[in-house]
Parts: sequence; C-alpha cells; structure tokens
Amino acid sequence: MTDQKYVFYGTIIDTPDPSTLRIRKEHICVVNKGRIELIQPFANRNLDEHQDVTFIHLSESQFICPGFVDLHCHAPQYRQAGSATEVPLLEWLRKFTFPNEARCSDPLYARDLYTKLVSRLLRNGTTTTQYFATIHLEATKILAEICQEKGQRAYIGKVCADQNSPDFYVETTDESIRNTEELIHYVHQMQKGRDVAGMNALIHPVITPRFIPTCSINLLSQLGQLAKKHDVHVQSHIAETADEVAFVHDLYPSIGNGRDVAIFRETGLLTSKAVFAHGIYLADNEVDEMVASGSAVASCPIANFLFSKGLTAIEHCTKRGLNVGLGTDIGGAYASSMLPVMRAAVFAHRTMDFVSFDRSHAALPCFPEHKDAVIDFKFAYYLATLGGARALNIDSQIGSFEVEKQFDALLIDCNVESQAFDYWKDDEMDILFEKWMNAGDDRNIAGVWVQGVKVG
Amino acid sequence: MTDQKYVFYGTIIDTPDPSTLRIRKEHICVVNKGRIELIQPFANRNLDEHQDVTFIHLSESQFICPGFVDLHCHAPQYRQAGSATEVPLLEWLRKFTFPNEARCSDPLYARDLYTKLVSRLLRNGTTTTQYFATIHLEATKILAEICQEKGQRAYIGKVCADQNSPDFYVETTDESIRNTEELIHYVHQMQKGRDVAGMNALIHPVITPRFIPTCSINLLSQLGQLAKKHDVHVQSHIAETADEVAFVHDLYPSIGNGRDVAIFRETGLLTSKAVFAHGIYLADNEVDEMVASGSAVASCPIANFLFSKGLTAIEHCTKRGLNVGLGTDIGGAYASSMLPVMRAAVFAHRTMDFVSFDRSHAALPCFPEHKDAVIDFKFAYYLATLGGARALNIDSQIGSFEVEKQFDALLIDCNVESQAFDYWKDDEMDILFEKWMNAGDDRNIAGVWVQGVKVG
Ligand SMILES: [Zn+2]
Ligand SMILES: [Zn+2]
Repeated sequence: MTDQKYVFYGTIIDTPDPSTLRIRKEHICVVNKGRIELIQPFANRNLDEHQDVTFIHLSESQFICPGFVDLHCHAPQYRQAGSATEVPLLEWLRKFTFPNEARCSDPLYARDLYTKLVSRLLRNGTTTTQYFATIHLEATKILAEICQEKGQRAYIGKVCADQNSPDFYVETTDESIRNTEELIHYVHQMQKGRDVAGMNALIHPVITPRFIPTCSINLLSQLGQLAKKHDVHVQSHIAETADEVAFVHDLYPSIGNGRDVAIFRETGLLTSKAVFAHGIYLADNEVDEMVASGSAVASCPIANFLFSKGLTAIEHCTKRGLNVGLGTDIGGAYASSMLPVMRAAVFAHRTMDFVSFDRSHAALPCFPEHKDAVIDFKFAYYLATLGGARALNIDSQIGSFEVEKQFDALLIDCNVESQAFDYWKDDEMDILFEKWMNAGDDRNIAGVWVQGVKVG
Repeated sequence: MTDQKYVFYGTIIDTPDPSTLRIRKEHICVVNKGRIELIQPFANRNLDEHQDVTFIHLSESQFICPGFVDLHCHAPQYRQAGSATEVPLLEWLRKFTFPNEARCSDPLYARDLYTKLVSRLLRNGTTTTQYFATIHLEATKILAEICQEKGQRAYIGKVCADQNSPDFYVETTDESIRNTEELIHYVHQMQKGRDVAGMNALIHPVITPRFIPTCSINLLSQLGQLAKKHDVHVQSHIAETADEVAFVHDLYPSIGNGRDVAIFRETGLLTSKAVFAHGIYLADNEVDEMVASGSAVASCPIANFLFSKGLTAIEHCTKRGLNVGLGTDIGGAYASSMLPVMRAAVFAHRTMDFVSFDRSHAALPCFPEHKDAVIDFKFAYYLATLGGARALNIDSQIGSFEVEKQFDALLIDCNVESQAFDYWKDDEMDILFEKWMNAGDDRNIAGVWVQGVKVG
C-alpha cells in the first residue's frame, strides 16, 4: 500500500469488450491511492497540477495496458511445469503431481517454491492469480503471505480431498473443513488494516474442493455451507475430461443425475463467486444453469490441448451469457505467462472451424462457409483481463482502465534491445500491441503495478 | 569457413528417430573442418590430443543439440510477422502480403529487411532455412548474400508467378524462367571455392512456383525442366486450404483431375528434392505418390491453425512413409523461432483425438480410446531437426550428431539469469531439455554453429 501518485502520459490500451481494442493516444492517466482518478486527452489538462507525483512519459514504443488475470494455477505443480507433458493423465497424477503436492507438507520447501512462482508470475505481468495450493494449511498460509509481501492480487484455496487420493496425500472430512475455515479466518485477518481509502483486500480465501471425485458429498455440502457463511469465492474443476465425467457419473449417479454442475448446485457450491476450470463437456442446459447462478469458467487451452482431448467452446458459451476467462493451469500446462495461453486460446477456437474430408479418395473437401474468426488476439486479451475480472466478479474494480477502478497495469515497451520480435518505425500502436501479443514476452514488460503499487 | 577445431565435453542431445531423445552424457564431440570427427564417452579418450583446439566444457545445465531446420519461410513477409493474424486469407494477401512483397523491388528495403530476418533466425537457433523470396531477382540475390555473410545454411527461391496476381506484382513467363535460371547460376557461382575439404555448399537455389493458381501450366512445365536440367531443389504450396484446392480444380480440371499433386507430377516438379508446404487436404493415394517420388511436406502448424482450417496429419502421413518437417511460415504465422512451431505441432496432433459430443443434452461423451500421444516434444524436436533434413534430402549431412555429419548445432544453457523458466537442482537433463522446449526461448541459446563455424 502506498500513497504514491502517478501520472502516465502517452498511449493507454485496453479491451472494454471482446471485439474492441481501445487505443487512447496522448492521454493522461492519473493514479492516486491505487485508483484511477482521471483518464483524458492531454490537451484538456494542465500538467502543473501533478508536480507532486511520479510523472511517466511513455515513449512512442510504449503503452500501458491492464495486467493479466490467471484464473487457474496449481501453485505446487510449478515444480513440474514444462515437464511430463507427454504422459497420460493418470500417470501424470500418480507419478508427478500427487508427490509434488505432498512435498508441500514441508513449509521450507513450499516457501522456496512459492517464492519462485509468485516472482515469475509478476514478472510475466500476471497481476491477479487464483491459486489451488495443497491440502496443507501451513503451506497455503505461506502462499498467502508471499503474495501479500510481493503485492500480487491473489485468490487462494487450500485444496480439499477426503477420498480417491493416495494415502500420502489425503485428509479427513473434518480436517478439510476445519483447515478451510482456519484459512478463511487467517486471510481475512491478514487483510485487516489494508482496507484503507476504500481499497479492496489484496488476498482472498477460496473454498477449493479439488474436483468431485476426491470429495465426499458430505465434504462438498459442508464446503457449500462455509461458502455461504463467509461469502467467499469457490473454485474447482468441472467437465474436464470424458474420463472425469464418467467417473463422477459412476460415483454419484443419484445426485443430479451424476453430472458435475448439478452436484455443485446440490451442495451449495454453484455460486456467483465460483469459478470452475475447463468446462469442456458441458451440455447447453448446464451452461445456462451456470449463467443463471453467476458462476464462471476458467478455460485453460494449453492443458486442454495436452490432456483433455477437447476444448472450452468459448464463443458458444459466451454467446449464452457465460463468464469465461483464462488460466495457465500450471502445471498441467507449461506456460507461466498468459501470453502463450492467449495464443493457444486463438488456436483452440480455430479448430472449431476445421474442415473434415475423406482421405481415402481424392474428392474435394467440403467448402467451409466463410466465417470471421471470432476469437482473435483482441478477444483473447479481453479474456485474459476483463473477462477474468468478470469471472471473479471484480470487474467493477479491475480488468480495464476506467475512472475509479484500481490500477492493475503493465507498462509495455516494444523497443527493448533484447526483445524477441522486430518492428518498424511506421508500425502503428495497434500493430505493436499485436506483435507483442503474438511474438513478445516478459522482456517487453517494463513495469507492473497492482493497486497502484509498483511490484515489478 | 574456418579450420577451427572444437572439442565439446559434456551432454549431447539429439533425436535419431521420432520417439528417441538420445542423451549422451560425459561425452566428447570433436569438430574438425566443419564435420564431426568423433563422438564418444570421455573416459576412452585423452584430452591432451586436443590442445590445439577450442575446448568447451559444458556445465551441468548445458548441452549441445542439433540446430533447427525451418522448411518454409517467406522472407519478405517478415515485415508483417506478428500482425494481421485475424484477417481472412484473401484480405491478408491483398492488403498486407502482396504489397509487402512488392516493396522488395527496392534493393535497399530488401537488404534491411532480410538482414533483420536472418539475424533473428540465427539468434533463434535456425541453422537451415528454406526461403521463398519474391519475384525480384535482385532482392533474391541479396537474400543469398546475406545468408552467406551471416553463415546460415539456406535454400532460396525466387518466387514465380505469371498469372492470378495483382498488376503491381506479377511477371511474364519468360521473365520468370530467365530470372530463375539466372538465380541458379548466381548461387552456384557464389558457392565455388567454398566446396573445400568435402564441405557442401552453404547456399542453394530452389525452383519456386508460388502455388499452382499463380502459375500457367507453361511456366510450371518450364520450371520442371529447369529442375531437371540443374538438379536443384523445388518448393511450392500443396493442398493448403479447401479454397485453394477448389481454385486449382476450377483452373486446371483436365490436368491430373485438377489436383495439386498430379499437376506437379505432370509438370516435372514432384521430385525427390521437392518440399511442399502444408499438405493438409491430401488424399491417401496422393500421399503415397509423394512418398514414391521422394518429395516431402513442410507442416506449418501455426499458419494451419490461423488460416487453413485444418492440420497436416503428420502421424498419418509419416506412417505411410512421407518425409515431413516443420516450417515457421513467416509471415502467415508469427513465430520466428521453431520453439513455438514445435509446441503448435504438438497441439495440432492432439486435436486429432478430440472427443465429440452432443451439447444439446446432458448425455455422457463417448469414451475416447486410450491412445498415447504420438507427437510429443521428442517427435516435434525430431521434425524440426532430422525430419527437416530428411525432407531436404540432406539427412546424411545434418539433423543429428553422427561422425562425418556436419556440425550444425546449438549450445543450450538452462541456467541463464534472465531465462523464462525455473528449474531445480535435481532436474535431470531430460527434464531440462523438455522445459526448454516447452517454456524456454532464445535466451537459453548460448551458441550457434553452422558447418562448424560459430555464427551466433
Ligand atoms: Zn486444474
Ligand atoms: Zn507459404
């Protein structure tokens, strides 16, 4: 928290809706007590008023844009991120994932790992992350502390799992509930005193059943009661793979016909503060039910490609009114930056149009109808910023640049010595932005702010 | 060209076949006159013999691996790479691509652009590139000179197009043939004197009909005669989009039933030195015909996602015996590094397994059969190295590390201060390699050699 004031002068870019890349040139953006006090064309304003502030004059190759919202990140799996991408899901869980999560019973191990992760995410411009930690209360508190120290906006859940888990990584129903509630108290306590000047808390507790198969109905129901009692966020996985859908159906055939959405509804977890990862095998009536409840989907396109044998039908679901954002899905996926995630979301969408044809003889493929690609780089950026904020129900606070919103922002410089792409002097700002989205990386991120505090 | 000798000591990684990541630890690799003279475990060899050489002791976080082969790169389109990714193909050609190619009539413009491109590709570890230049002879010669100066192994074609092109960017049939033959002479002349000590030439001319629609049958046939007369490489596009397939069928219905493969065969262009980009809408009998002719496919997965509404069925085609490698497809695609291309090849392959289901009601999706993913990071690396070398018919020279092969190699360091991924001390070499493949970039490329010459 700081009272530092900033005035940015130059180009301000955001996506107020999925199809609009809003580029405001020669504007000033005044940031005071963490919030945006003013955005307007420069000519209307006398800069002398702002002499007590940090004045940042953006160059021709620089702009500010909203920081990224990563809706789905398994913090303990950062240990394996980038490896084990070729193994089948069950082996991936048994051999890599559960053992790596179990190691977080050691607080020193967890502190080292989570410090590396949060530093990396901030450096990559992720100003808000929703985390799955592990079943361990202590390590989950450590993650909350690290996010607070480093200044990242974070939604953090202690993972809940009282069944269908390995012996070395499972908890009782009572432990799960008790530790979840203790985490809620702990995080709420941490935020006391920060809530000055109308600022929201930085760190938030999240009720986190791992996924339905690892949770008894008793556990799910008690977690639903906790969600209501404390009015906190909820996260889990939903309709992720065909195997998972079938497993849930076998396990709980009599509850909501054995479907994820109905089971979450029956246990009180389908709330307006709930975000569910993947949502690949959702039927339309289930999408509609999620829309009615105000819950959202975190699409994780890299993990979907690698493990789910399917994709989130983002365009289809958003047209029905569903809030969708993006997640890295560390470590089912390998990217710690939202840039490759956005690129994969574009790829995934394009596969919906794929033309099928019969390879067995040389007939012409059917003509595809011409359709403009709906999910382009602009839509992807929207999903990674304002879309994510909407999924978390905090779009009144972050996700785009509006007066009164909090300043979670990146300063992008497209003229860095070591950068990964070339540009030419006559490339306009929209071209620079698109080149960075497609071919740039953290080397172009020259500054990161959360709640108006420079954190990277 | 240099007589510098190198001895590398440490870990040597390559993919001698698509499913094998060969990791040779504590080996020496002796490079002399551009070729690999010896690879063997260190213990067997006295290092004193090598005191007249540059000795490179690889650290625990370093390894050497083969440089990348990019089979398909439109050099003039580097100007737009990373932008215009959301526009439909025809608009993309008319508004961006043809105008940018036409600008290369200015040799100064072309020199600046191509200098930036070749520097970028070498920095990204691409030791061999097959280029489409433009219809301009002068600018194409300049590209050849720049590759020679900077030391990149290059296959370079002057684009041929005598019809169905804009007025400002078209040539006559005679110009096309005359300038193609002059480029062949020019490049062969450039290579004289380099062919010392058994080294192959560095720069190679390529017969380059843009794609069938822009070429008269007369032009294609004369190009086929040139290919035979000079025994040089051939490149073009094949079965790229459903629109293109239909366009060719309309244009030349009586030649080979209006199919790309048959037309290239009829005009003498389906040779064992021919590489065709994309190959998405190939019927099985056409794949078999390409196999019989010894021609190959350059799969460009990023461009396929963005523009082609389909994918190269790499596993399917390679099982039938087709040689397949990878291409960036600059600037239809945005990556100038083969790393994102390999990652996209993995994504593309996974979509073949995608499960379909009926969203209109909540039935269970069909169970997918369990299949191991065939195209994983190892297969992708094979495609980008030895697979590309096979496609170009130069796998006896490059693509993996064998005695007598030329030394086209990268020194990868996974412990660079600024790098994009984290690793832990107990990560083994296979994990480091996979993390670099999935989450690393040019920051980890600490050295680049082509024909034993350090070029980056
Ligand atoms: Zn997950
Ligand atoms: Zn092409």
